[in-house]
Amino acid sequence: MRYDVITLFPEIIQSYCSQSITKRGIENGIITVNTHNPRDFSKDKRKKVDDTPYGGGEGMVLMCQPIFDCYNSIEKIQNSDDFEFIMLTPQGEKFNQKKAVDLSMKKQIVFLCGHYEGFDERIRLALKPREFSIGDYILTGGELPCLVMIDSISRNLKDYLGKDESACNDSFSEGLKGLLEYPHYTKPREYMGLRVPDVLLNGNHKEIEEFRKQESIKRTKTRRPDLFN
Amino acid sequence: MRYDVITLFPEIIQSYCSQSITKRGIENGIITVNTHNPRDFSKDKRKKVDDTPYGGGEGMVLMCQPIFDCYNSIEKIQNSDDFEFIMLTPQGEKFNQKKAVDLSMKKQIVFLCGHYEGFDERIRLALKPREFSIGDYILTGGELPCLVMIDSISRNLKDYLGKDESACNDSFSEGLKGLLEYPHYTKPREYMGLRVPDVLLNGNHKEIEEFRKQESIKRTKTRRPDLFN
Repeated sequence: MRYDVITLFPEIIQSYCSQSITKRGIENGIITVNTHNPRDFSKDKRKKVDDTPYGGGEGMVLMCQPIFDCYNSIEKIQNSDDFEFIMLTPQGEKFNQKKAVDLSMKKQIVFLCGHYEGFDERIRLALKPREFSIGDYILTGGELPCLVMIDSISRNLKDYLGKDESACNDSFSEGLKGLLEYPHYTKPREYMGLRVPDVLLNGNHKEIEEFRKQESIKRTKTRRPDLFN
Repeated sequence: MRYDVITLFPEIIQSYCSQSITKRGIENGIITVNTHNPRDFSKDKRKKVDDTPYGGGEGMVLMCQPIFDCYNSIEKIQNSDDFEFIMLTPQGEKFNQKKAVDLSMKKQIVFLCGHYEGFDERIRLALKPREFSIGDYILTGGELPCLVMIDSISRNLKDYLGKDESACNDSFSEGLKGLLEYPHYTKPREYMGLRVPDVLLNGNHKEIEEFRKQESIKRTKTRRPDLFN
């Protein structure tokens, strides 16, 4: 998977990707992450990328020219089925686990991260990105949502996760049929008076499976009745 | 606001917070961000923090002892109304803009970031954190969700945002009564044949306000009918 990130703050993307699991994914050749700064494409002599909004109001708006030229400079895979162009905005469709799995089938994803008050509307109208939101809250820019999507999508790529980081029984995953995950316990058997449930210690795999299934159902019903259909 | 982050990957938190708007918030004395690594508290001679799950299954589970001791080592504000302890987990309550505003009234928030297969259930039972999820997708760890929450909460703190980063007319915000934001346009008036709507250029503030209101309503109805109540 090749990720290209259009951002005014490439260091945020690069520093995250130089650590932990993303770093390993890059070193193992499973993903590449390139950053592209619209400021490098500005034709303004002071490298300006934003200006005040027409019609008045607070905040600065990202201009068309640096974004269009930056986007056009990115080498793109020829088969359009393998390609996705994503704009991160609170107005986009909600990102979720199913979409993470679907997007992991692509070969290249270009992300456009906003900042300040937002983008000139013509960027959306002409470049026709698919717009995504990671949740109903306001953030300073698109960089954190972009990293959230890269993390969530990449987890579905073959050999991306190590054996300690299994993906098949996580909340929302196929293995749990969309339910929340059951509780986990590890050593010691007793800690500060709190004991591990006996059923997990008796070695009866059928009982353990049934216990976990019931806990998943109970937890989902209590916490997220909306998921329980 | 004082943030304390319990994480096995403090570099992820620190590198993000040394950049952009978070860096400025720290330099201006509006927020502080401290990290605490459970590995430093492990009583195991190899500094182990996780072990295999009782009852079998893939993945590793974070152990009680290093997390309890790490949490207990953090200096906490005395008034419990000003304090929140938050665990980041896909099973938690959904984070949203209203909760970001409410949490910005606190004086100290301690975040507990998971990794691998999850936490020993007794951590949840004994330390009673408030559990939050930023969305219905699986991530590698709690670090990105923690940064998302820090960013979203901090934006509500006085003097955190500069004048180019206004918060009052963003999507979901009070100023827009929970609607999505209207489209923005900036210079030039015409770019590649795409023109700014005339109403934004005529200087009639009443008409501009009405245009923006109608665009917000139209956009919210089309994209997020669920928000329109």
